[in-house]
Amino acid sequence: MTPAAAVPHGDIIPCSMTVAPFSHRVRIYWEDTDAGGVVFYANYLKLFERARTEWLRALGFGQQRLRDDEGLMFVVTDTRVRFVQPARLDDELTITVAPVAPPRATLSLRQQALRGDTLLADSDITLACVEAGTFRPRRIPNAIVGPIIGALAPQPPGP
Amino acid sequence: MTPAAAVPHGDIIPCSMTVAPFSHRVRIYWEDTDAGGVVFYANYLKLFERARTEWLRALGFGQQRLRDDEGLMFVVTDTRVRFVQPARLDDELTITVAPVAPPRATLSLRQQALRGDTLLADSDITLACVEAGTFRPRRIPNAIVGPIIGALAPQPPGP
Amino acid sequence: MTPAAAVPHGDIIPCSMTVAPFSHRVRIYWEDTDAGGVVFYANYLKLFERARTEWLRALGFGQQRLRDDEGLMFVVTDTRVRFVQPARLDDELTITVAPVAPPRATLSLRQQALRGDTLLADSDITLACVEAGTFRPRRIPNAIVGPIIGALAPQPPGP
Amino acid sequence: MTPAAAVPHGDIIPCSMTVAPFSHRVRIYWEDTDAGGVVFYANYLKLFERARTEWLRALGFGQQRLRDDEGLMFVVTDTRVRFVQPARLDDELTITVAPVAPPRATLSLRQQALRGDTLLADSDITLACVEAGTFRPRRIPNAIVGPIIGALAPQPPGP
Repeated sequence: MTPAAAVPHGDIIPCSMTVAPFSHRVRIYWEDTDAGGVVFYANYLKLFERARTEWLRALGFGQQRLRDDEGLMFVVTDTRVRFVQPARLDDELTITVAPVAPPRATLSLRQQALRGDTLLADSDITLACVEAGTFRPRRIPNAIVGPIIGALAPQPPGP
Repeated sequence: MTPAAAVPHGDIIPCSMTVAPFSHRVRIYWEDTDAGGVVFYANYLKLFERARTEWLRALGFGQQRLRDDEGLMFVVTDTRVRFVQPARLDDELTITVAPVAPPRATLSLRQQALRGDTLLADSDITLACVEAGTFRPRRIPNAIVGPIIGALAPQPPGP
Repeated sequence: MTPAAAVPHGDIIPCSMTVAPFSHRVRIYWEDTDAGGVVFYANYLKLFERARTEWLRALGFGQQRLRDDEGLMFVVTDTRVRFVQPARLDDELTITVAPVAPPRATLSLRQQALRGDTLLADSDITLACVEAGTFRPRRIPNAIVGPIIGALAPQPPGP
Repeated sequence: MTPAAAVPHGDIIPCSMTVAPFSHRVRIYWEDTDAGGVVFYANYLKLFERARTEWLRALGFGQQRLRDDEGLMFVVTDTRVRFVQPARLDDELTITVAPVAPPRATLSLRQQALRGDTLLADSDITLACVEAGTFRPRRIPNAIVGPIIGALAPQPPGP
């Protein structure tokens, strides 16, 4: 992540690069691995989903409640994952979540899986908001858009 | 399976032993294995569930339709699994399903995973019928009980 | 769990009941659920495995290291699970691990899944120790048996 | 798929469009779904993997044998998946596999999940060949490249 200090005055700052992304720690268990001795590729999408769920919860939104109270669900419409290094049993990974733009019809996130400073997998994930029963597209509620835009905003320089 | 010929006259024959159990073929893929190089223990329950679904379908009951039309679901209330030999990538297994008694409040099944004649895992599974939304117990519909009892009945001797 | 104070003098105390069992917190994510709206039955075995792994780690044994250094793996040979109440998305569960006897050829554990004080699933799990490549049975190393027996021993009364 | 007849003389034909892609049928079971009532997004990568395995097997390459005999494994290095429509319990899907170019350092595939003619998910998958133990890159063996290029070649016009 480029520190804010490195960005010259007057430049447009890609918002998500000015704040540390949300991160969530996960442990690799037997269930995550395959006979190749490493984490099965599909399972990174599980790890990314867990981190997104915790990110939404940290912003104030439990998904079960979102469904019960508003009849809404987030669904993934597009994923791109680049697998860089394999993760193994007992590894402890950091999974990051960073919105890459203000949410509109969809919500675009960048997510990474890291072991220490080593990048293991890097992803672009697009979510949409739908009605729980019918999967018809719905606007992302303002109550959610607000905190996400807040999370995107450049933070004041530290001491 | 004890062949019918080996059962002395007058004995009570456990019904499920007089007919070949239903069987379903499954292939072992990377997703099923773990870093031990073999099928992860929890995944046998997935294989058993697939075979039960195909068994119900063969009896005339798709579970999505059972839910849509009758508002009913089967849930597992008890499982016992003995793991005998590991299964590996690319193995083709036979998963059997045999009711062990006429269904009453619950439905008791015996299920096995075999590679050829080699027993890999052996299980006793108990299912109950519940209302889809509330999980309140419901009677197993007669339309399902009938075919299962039919499957239990000793078949007439072949030519 | 019966508190130690309730056990009369001179009785033989089932060891595992005199100490609080090891427990591990897990969150229920989308990956754990199925179209019934609850946790898929096979996935409880994943939660139980995670808790066992953390229990072994707390006793000083990482399984990847056990495999690298000693060429040993634990495998499950028998499981019995009773499913009492369904768990749902966003639930936070406590998964317990308690050895029920000193380990010999096998290691017998009782594991439960609880939401608060509500029992959701209750299990008896038997593990054996095998050579990583061949799956041939091996004695559980004394370095592991010792701490488990220590965990079984009644603890001195608190202040 | 554009029929070969529609391609004017002299044009460069994207090879994969001139032959029907390999396809593999899969059934959706409870294990594949989540509490949203549809197939969990990560599980499409399992379905794609199963189809790739069957495609390799149809070309003459079992992956367990590839590993035992040659010490080689295929690993996924990049995936892009667009989720178009949800799949549901009991659906029977067709999963396609089509190489999009002659294999070089990597093997690029297009894979789709369809229910009848309805596209549910569309993916671009890149595989690399590695040494099983070390994950060091290795050339894709000619014995595999040959049949894949053969599969890419335009087929002679039918009767």
